[in-house]
Amino acid sequence: MAKGRLHVVGFGPGGKDDMTFRAARVIEDADIVTGYTTYVNLLKPIFPDKVYKATGMMKEVERCRSAIEDAMTGKDVAMVSSGDSGIYGMAGIIYQLAEEMGADIEIDTVPGMTAASTAASVLGAPLMHDLAIISLSDLMTPIDLIMKRVEMAAEGDFVTCLYNPKSKTRTEYLDQARQILLKKRTPETPVGIVRNAGREDQWSKVTTLGDLDPADVDMFCIVIIGNSQTYVSDGRMITPRGYRIEGSE
Amino acid sequence: MAKGRLHVVGFGPGGKDDMTFRAARVIEDADIVTGYTTYVNLLKPIFPDKVYKATGMMKEVERCRSAIEDAMTGKDVAMVSSGDSGIYGMAGIIYQLAEEMGADIEIDTVPGMTAASTAASVLGAPLMHDLAIISLSDLMTPIDLIMKRVEMAAEGDFVTCLYNPKSKTRTEYLDQARQILLKKRTPETPVGIVRNAGREDQWSKVTTLGDLDPADVDMFCIVIIGNSQTYVSDGRMITPRGYRIEGSE
Repeated sequence: MAKGRLHVVGFGPGGKDDMTFRAARVIEDADIVTGYTTYVNLLKPIFPDKVYKATGMMKEVERCRSAIEDAMTGKDVAMVSSGDSGIYGMAGIIYQLAEEMGADIEIDTVPGMTAASTAASVLGAPLMHDLAIISLSDLMTPIDLIMKRVEMAAEGDFVTCLYNPKSKTRTEYLDQARQILLKKRTPETPVGIVRNAGREDQWSKVTTLGDLDPADVDMFCIVIIGNSQTYVSDGRMITPRGYRIEGSE
Repeated sequence: MAKGRLHVVGFGPGGKDDMTFRAARVIEDADIVTGYTTYVNLLKPIFPDKVYKATGMMKEVERCRSAIEDAMTGKDVAMVSSGDSGIYGMAGIIYQLAEEMGADIEIDTVPGMTAASTAASVLGAPLMHDLAIISLSDLMTPIDLIMKRVEMAAEGDFVTCLYNPKSKTRTEYLDQARQILLKKRTPETPVGIVRNAGREDQWSKVTTLGDLDPADVDMFCIVIIGNSQTYVSDGRMITPRGYRIEGSE
């Protein structure tokens, strides 16, 4: 029997346009396409003839285990998720589980465009300089560590990109992060919010750290806070490539 | 006359496979494809019939100005670069210059996969948790600020991804960054080096913070330093999705 293969595929924001050729080919060639229901539903119109296995949220470990088991039967399996499978994605847990299970399969990661890239392109050019990406989800990370990271990002004047800024149960963390950032940055610091980045119902808003209203943000948003140099021009959020240095142009 | 258009296109690591469909279409549809010679040379074999305008390094501002001027004549211009045009890319300066020049053109950013994503997929799954991206280039950023950011990334236990880790004139910064990180992380912390990520002559190595040899690193490398949880298994660098929290699975 040929060795089974498991591709951990990030397909970007959702449409075919922002997918890589490699991701599309791997999905087209797979025997089974597996993933969280929302992701599978994004792919069905693009690849209507595939065999899909969709499972609900919060069953991630079982979904991964099942994908590995399918690959162990010699099948070619594409495990799909939006964004980049390598950034807050499934790649890590797949490697971990495959080892635990002693699975003799080939695993590869097919990276995609992460949400920070998509959201930035909607807002203008906010990520032109050093960047911190922080998830506000405390499901697997102590909230104190998350807020310490926000503090370090503020202290280091990083452009700061927040993933999972809110959920039904975590509504106050975004404001907590805002308060921490306000200790180091002015209330005029530009902030961009993008909901459903790169999807049909995309929505965005450019505001400031002082005016950022958590009511504008939900779990489908990415929030990007500028560094001390970021400005807004013609509605676009722009971070210069550098700081003025004596003797430079 | 129709309004000219300028697309600031990131085409990912270099080959067509890791480009998005949108990037390929925008390049195919453009009247002129313009960029740094190295990037243009990567695209010529993929899109042999295009009109290219290639210029050397260190002429970035002139290149951008010329692209804007071409668009101002009503042409459709694709300004190309590798990785994501929105992360340390040309998007920001294009918006800035177009405003200065009072250019009445349409500008849009077509994001691509950034080098961190490509390098991570080569190494395994190092970017599964909060991430700091820092460029060690001091061309436009004071070195003290760069090193402060490294310190903050160390203090916040961020997975840390170094762009431009070395150049002909900056050979000591990587070791300086390593020393700063060693104050907060053990010498056993995994470090991945990827040269020419996603290109034909790709090379990679997994080592540790204690053993990291700057001689292995040049200007074509990305260096990824794990957080306190990152480990190596079967040659792959893996960062778990979270920290063990009491009461979690």
